Amino acid sequence: MDGPPPASPAGLSAFVAVSQLLGLTLLATTGAWLGRYRGGVAWHSPLQFNAHPLCMVLGMVFLQGDALLVYRVFRHEAKRSTKALHALLHGLALLIALVGIIAVFKSHRAKGTPDMYSLHSWCGMAAFVLYLLQWLLGCGFFLFPGASFSLRGRYKPQHIFFGIALFILSIASCLLGITEMLLFKISDSYSHFVPEGVLANTLGVMLVAFGLVVGYVVTREEWKRPPLAEELALSMDFKTLTEGESPGGGSQ
Amino acid sequence: MDGPPPASPAGLSAFVAVSQLLGLTLLATTGAWLGRYRGGVAWHSPLQFNAHPLCMVLGMVFLQGDALLVYRVFRHEAKRSTKALHALLHGLALLIALVGIIAVFKSHRAKGTPDMYSLHSWCGMAAFVLYLLQWLLGCGFFLFPGASFSLRGRYKPQHIFFGIALFILSIASCLLGITEMLLFKISDSYSHFVPEGVLANTLGVMLVAFGLVVGYVVTREEWKRPPLAEELALSMDFKTLTEGESPGGGSQ
Repeated sequence: MDGPPPASPAGLSAFVAVSQLLGLTLLATTGAWLGRYRGGVAWHSPLQFNAHPLCMVLGMVFLQGDALLVYRVFRHEAKRSTKALHALLHGLALLIALVGIIAVFKSHRAKGTPDMYSLHSWCGMAAFVLYLLQWLLGCGFFLFPGASFSLRGRYKPQHIFFGIALFILSIASCLLGITEMLLFKISDSYSHFVPEGVLANTLGVMLVAFGLVVGYVVTREEWKRPPLAEELALSMDFKTLTEGESPGGGSQ
Repeated sequence: MDGPPPASPAGLSAFVAVSQLLGLTLLATTGAWLGRYRGGVAWHSPLQFNAHPLCMVLGMVFLQGDALLVYRVFRHEAKRSTKALHALLHGLALLIALVGIIAVFKSHRAKGTPDMYSLHSWCGMAAFVLYLLQWLLGCGFFLFPGASFSLRGRYKPQHIFFGIALFILSIASCLLGITEMLLFKISDSYSHFVPEGVLANTLGVMLVAFGLVVGYVVTREEWKRPPLAEELALSMDFKTLTEGESPGGGSQ
């Protein structure tokens, strides 16, 4: 902690700021759609269904996306705390998404609508269940002390790939949900470019834009989190001590 | 070309084989859906619309995906020929997608249906226009001799990121198209798990699976195309001669 704190790479802060602006606009637009055109949100009422899109956009998109960004934003903090925040944000996202899923099942039951027949429900449920599994595996491998250094190194690229894939699948499921909701609610007027249709389409485009910006930040090579000096020394010692594996075996 | 040809990394061939099986099954399933439940495909008839899903799955998904795989499959061929095949497959994908887009506009005109009002059309058109732009930029930077070595090196990571992003957006647009078509055609029976709905949902799941497998193959670090010995020597010479830039500047 001597000297000034190390600077972030040029451009990273701007991209992160844009992602947060987009994320907040996503939430506001979802709220505006539900409030202005769908009667708002209330749990014990026929408006219970409306908790579903709000929770899914907040949990499966905004919070999941922010959890992915944690290693880029807090790039000079200790890895242990960054990891805890990453797990915490994903956990919170899962909890909120669970509330959103309960909302849709309860509202279907109240209206006598069948469950899980649409492509939206198949993709969305797959995204949620695999996201929960990914979170459990992530905690098991990286938060608890059981997994060996080499096992963590081998699992890490898979964790990263499937993390990004599930974030994309979550966004795709939201787009499917928007399309379903518009075709259920305004099928007669949707093709006349009514304001509700244009607003919901714009929400869809913003979801894609959020995914693009977050995806760009987390995959850009130069913006990856550099290991701190003490992590590097520790991992070298640990590697030499435990196995003396081939160099570059996916450990950073 | 002395000695036996270098082997591909373990697992790569299996993943590529699975991707091709999935891709062909996608096409067969699309054909089965249109043939069995939607009356088949014919250009000068009310069935013209059905050319749209078939062309989009063939062009924007199967061929686009295969064009991304070219650098992994032909990893030991000369870069010039691999690059030409990559551009050619993308070009063919664009042509077939254009036929699919013409089909939907002509069929809308014949039926008096408005164009471009749905989230599917917004996402799909954005994917097509940006894909065409990406192809033109790719040809300009990498196929024609104008761009400098350093400019190519700086554009290449962007080309790769946006290439994968557009492939994903194309798949998401297909999922939206499936949902729209089911809600237009079988809205009354979709929720009763009728065979057409289950078949089309399964097509959606297979589209996601194809995207996952192709995405895994093209992003896996160990499977990236290694530069041939002569490319490495040439690029080092060229770099030293032209600018003496900082090392590791995104040139491989």
